[in-house]
Amino acid sequence: MPTQAMRAIVYDGKHAFYTDDRAVPVPVAGEALIKVTLAALCNTDREIMAGYSPGFNHVMGHEFVGVVEAVFSDADSVFVGKRVVGEINLSCFSPDCPYCSTQRSSQCLKRLVAGIHNRDGCFADYIALPTRLLHVVPDGLPDEAALFAEPLAAALRITEGSHISPNQPVALVGDGRLAYMIAQVIALTAASLTIFGLCEEKLALFEPFTSDTRMLRQSESSISEHDLQGYEVVIDATGHPSGLATALALTRSGGLLIMKSTYALSVEIDMSEVVVREITIRGSRCGPFAPALRYLDRELICLPPIEVFDPQDLEAAFASTAFKVALKF
Amino acid sequence: MPTQAMRAIVYDGKHAFYTDDRAVPVPVAGEALIKVTLAALCNTDREIMAGYSPGFNHVMGHEFVGVVEAVFSDADSVFVGKRVVGEINLSCFSPDCPYCSTQRSSQCLKRLVAGIHNRDGCFADYIALPTRLLHVVPDGLPDEAALFAEPLAAALRITEGSHISPNQPVALVGDGRLAYMIAQVIALTAASLTIFGLCEEKLALFEPFTSDTRMLRQSESSISEHDLQGYEVVIDATGHPSGLATALALTRSGGLLIMKSTYALSVEIDMSEVVVREITIRGSRCGPFAPALRYLDRELICLPPIEVFDPQDLEAAFASTAFKVALKF
Repeated sequence: MPTQAMRAIVYDGKHAFYTDDRAVPVPVAGEALIKVTLAALCNTDREIMAGYSPGFNHVMGHEFVGVVEAVFSDADSVFVGKRVVGEINLSCFSPDCPYCSTQRSSQCLKRLVAGIHNRDGCFADYIALPTRLLHVVPDGLPDEAALFAEPLAAALRITEGSHISPNQPVALVGDGRLAYMIAQVIALTAASLTIFGLCEEKLALFEPFTSDTRMLRQSESSISEHDLQGYEVVIDATGHPSGLATALALTRSGGLLIMKSTYALSVEIDMSEVVVREITIRGSRCGPFAPALRYLDRELICLPPIEVFDPQDLEAAFASTAFKVALKF
Repeated sequence: MPTQAMRAIVYDGKHAFYTDDRAVPVPVAGEALIKVTLAALCNTDREIMAGYSPGFNHVMGHEFVGVVEAVFSDADSVFVGKRVVGEINLSCFSPDCPYCSTQRSSQCLKRLVAGIHNRDGCFADYIALPTRLLHVVPDGLPDEAALFAEPLAAALRITEGSHISPNQPVALVGDGRLAYMIAQVIALTAASLTIFGLCEEKLALFEPFTSDTRMLRQSESSISEHDLQGYEVVIDATGHPSGLATALALTRSGGLLIMKSTYALSVEIDMSEVVVREITIRGSRCGPFAPALRYLDRELICLPPIEVFDPQDLEAAFASTAFKVALKF
């Protein structure tokens, strides 16, 4: 195992900074030490810097691809030398835990979250993670593609948690990075998919795999009569409080509204409409990695280009407006 | 068919008043004329008088038991002389309607709602309704019990729309009339049921069929650590905006929050909590009459006493604080 110091992007509770003098983590029972190859920046990293995870003062980052360099236990030696991606919720996995015992370990109240809550993340030369959270990357899949396992898994949480029938009209509100993954997952169900976005240029990217796209003006009244309450399933991936009202207006009575947006603000909602129209609103977050890797391995997902930065160029990386930004370790 | 005028409680857009000079309705194709025996007052009637259904100026009332006196079509003659209860949504039932063609006719956009929206209700000697909305009351079931078919159906909408597993901890927030029906429906699933209410006297009524009851103070902080996020399924039947925050605090991550409360106000909600904790919020309204009659016929439901008034004593009826109030026609 390496003993020298390593490079890392650390958040000190107020600022993110680059260092080349962070101690390499030491794996404990059940863990592996992984040499990080590529790590992606995502909105959650920006939100952490805006105060999303109070008290977090660790190595940042939670999307990566890397190679297992060492394991603590001989039982895990099969992982050594393997290229992997990793889940980030370090849960208690106790049979007494109401979450870990019911396939909801990502909701475990005792969990640490690498790069987000009380645990070092992947913006570093090395990360230590339990091997039970690792997924071996298929041989033919490039690192750049494997890096999309995490956001694609978040999109797959939708079909994992809800039945999307192939003959349902589905609306997706949002034209950002997560929406780009979600649109493709929904399109693979064969459901008719309409994307509602604010940016014509971004919407054009969705055209290969959607039935239709619509420009939204900044108000709900820009929804046409045809679209109003016209969709059995509506997904809000705007990342903005206004997305909920738009999504609700698009949802058919008795339909399903899936919320992927997180934001710091509370929103006003007409709950009587939810009750009288018998809408189901479902929060959806992290998802399953294994099916994400299957989709990627079969090249069923169009991936946007990645802009790669050196970890020392942190400011430039965070300032980039590229669809996907990664750090090369 | 009777040709004389009848007694009725009519809402004129501003006030409810008694008259003995309302024309008896004339059934059209597919409809029956029903002699009303008992009609129940419910909160929705009070809400109509507070402006819940703008433009409504018809006979009020939507919960009744009565006897079919005549039918328009010979094909429906089997109904004549039968004791019935009736659903209230007069939907289009067209195969082209996205709601009527998918077993959601109560959400049909073209529907009239007897006693609530654009159609005469049951606070009258007679009501006309399509026979497809009628349910024959089992022989041994008293009128007073059959009168609970509608609120019990609304409670059964919960188990119709969501899987309540018998080994799930379920919380019900609310101790009113609808909660009383809901509690019994949930208890019949064998799930462990805890009722959260504001009134000790009312809570005592629930004890025969609940695992536990809790007094809520007026703030969310009165929830104990043990109850906080302790329930897989939580039902809000408070009828008050504050019920949502309480219900959300009780719901386990990944759990189900069923909303039965309708009210005129918008509420603020922390949607990020809904997303991050992957809560499902489901609106629930009218339900199926046939299973309600089965429960009633088998005497599986404890019914509260009814206070019965003459239609002329309308003010006294609306002022009554009895658990259930009915008009005798």
